[in-house]
Amino acid sequence: MNEQAVSHRKATKYPYFEEETSAEVVNARMGKDADPRLRQVMAAIVKHLHAAVKEIEPTHDEWLAAIKFLTDTGHMCTDWRQEFILLSDTLGVSMLVDTINNRRPNGATENTLLGPFYIPDAPIYESGANISLDGKGEPIVVRGTVADTDGKPVAGAKIDVWQANDDGFYDVQQKGVQPDMNLRGLFTADSEGKFWFRSAKPRYYPIPSDGPVGKLLDKMGRHPNRAAHLHMIVTAPGFEPVVTHIFTPDCPYLEEDAVFGVKESLIADFKHVDDPARAREFGFANPFWSVHWDFVLAPAKAGAAERTMFHVSRS
Amino acid sequence: MNEQAVSHRKATKYPYFEEETSAEVVNARMGKDADPRLRQVMAAIVKHLHAAVKEIEPTHDEWLAAIKFLTDTGHMCTDWRQEFILLSDTLGVSMLVDTINNRRPNGATENTLLGPFYIPDAPIYESGANISLDGKGEPIVVRGTVADTDGKPVAGAKIDVWQANDDGFYDVQQKGVQPDMNLRGLFTADSEGKFWFRSAKPRYYPIPSDGPVGKLLDKMGRHPNRAAHLHMIVTAPGFEPVVTHIFTPDCPYLEEDAVFGVKESLIADFKHVDDPARAREFGFANPFWSVHWDFVLAPAKAGAAERTMFHVSRS
Repeated sequence: MNEQAVSHRKATKYPYFEEETSAEVVNARMGKDADPRLRQVMAAIVKHLHAAVKEIEPTHDEWLAAIKFLTDTGHMCTDWRQEFILLSDTLGVSMLVDTINNRRPNGATENTLLGPFYIPDAPIYESGANISLDGKGEPIVVRGTVADTDGKPVAGAKIDVWQANDDGFYDVQQKGVQPDMNLRGLFTADSEGKFWFRSAKPRYYPIPSDGPVGKLLDKMGRHPNRAAHLHMIVTAPGFEPVVTHIFTPDCPYLEEDAVFGVKESLIADFKHVDDPARAREFGFANPFWSVHWDFVLAPAKAGAAERTMFHVSRS
Repeated sequence: MNEQAVSHRKATKYPYFEEETSAEVVNARMGKDADPRLRQVMAAIVKHLHAAVKEIEPTHDEWLAAIKFLTDTGHMCTDWRQEFILLSDTLGVSMLVDTINNRRPNGATENTLLGPFYIPDAPIYESGANISLDGKGEPIVVRGTVADTDGKPVAGAKIDVWQANDDGFYDVQQKGVQPDMNLRGLFTADSEGKFWFRSAKPRYYPIPSDGPVGKLLDKMGRHPNRAAHLHMIVTAPGFEPVVTHIFTPDCPYLEEDAVFGVKESLIADFKHVDDPARAREFGFANPFWSVHWDFVLAPAKAGAAERTMFHVSRS
């Protein structure tokens, strides 16, 4: 009889899984020829993921619940519904990514989320136009300026505006119910950098909450409401585009925006105006609302301008 | 004219999003009445997720690529394919969760992943049975013992065995191709805690790699192969069930198991035996393989026994 033992000696530094070195074991497995940025990203993901698991110490059932949640979230995604973006939004990740990519010089208008309801072909209006085509809600006059960080007016700057109507829906969510292009318009700043338009005071509305993310929010004791806001994208040649909101100061959800889009610098002073003569002048019922907003544009960063405009984040 | 300004003062500690305090802002939003464990889990997830984003500083396009990856992974999941478990497995998370939940006293046999191919109703065999019903591969005789941590035999312990065939597939993956219940069997330890059976030497095989996780592995410079192993679940009243593998020492993927299932303590000494008389005795062609394996069971932890057995993790 001839018995030949087969045995094995470790050849690499982290060949086998151990709890203490778990992230290092996984990351040591990546190929040296893999794309350096992918290696960097995956190494960070694995490191922080393992740190989270070690802090949480999930039971097997909890791990399985997490797998099921991710699976349900994936199954909820269609061409018209992006539940993972909703998850990213409600956990503050979208806002963090937006903030990291849009650090501005002091004084320049801050960015916030683009949201899923932007469409690029809003009607082009002269200053003063009323974009509220359904006439719902409380009337508002919005006046403002666009300047650079030295206070010099940016003549010809484009102000692309959109918002939800008084029922809490954007036109694209209610095709056939709202007039097409309701509450959308593209305005141009004049030679002094000034613009103005008429609209309806925005109100809060819920993000879609009938999926796994809505259920999670509910379990976490959170509501799905976005603080009331006007959306604006302000662009001008040579300047960084600003994708931003103007928030009303009196919204009950201002401090609890479901997607963390509120920045203190983006809360405007809205004035409630009781003046029948001026209301008549604007074609408004009295009383009405008035807000003034000054945009400050930062100089363009090379290569950054196009990107922000053509990739829609959804919230 | 009467203009009434509406303004707002912060009422809570973290009302608005800021880069520095981003995770605290998000976590402060959870309701005080939410389930305490859910609060703890979500707070840790948000903290580590934001730390990862701050380390990675993803561009908007990279963030969108991550959203797309998660969406594709969700869409790949069906009743028969769990791509998120595959993701968990290949990033070492499944193994970490298994390890955290199965810390054993020194000397007790270690756990490893259950895998997706366990089925609970394997044929009940007498010691010595050959579970290789397709006759493929190199024959092996497996002999072993089951004892407690004091070395006392555990008579009547059940040893539930399953493995892939020499083509790298489990019977359930090849219904109609392999005989039903090929390479599965339930054995019982005798009064001295001994058991033995005949089978085929296991070989490596790939995890499903035609989905988003397989593509990611490929980009990371990793292969999808699992190191060759026999699966075993060993149970006995009063002891913690052991869900484990026995690994062959000569597998080319031993140090690179795609799901990190290998633990050093689970690599056995396989002997290659050239002995025509003994081969004949076992009904084998000569030469054949032989392995001896001693299981050591830890005392049962209250409540833990049932859980491990009835929730299948898949890898």
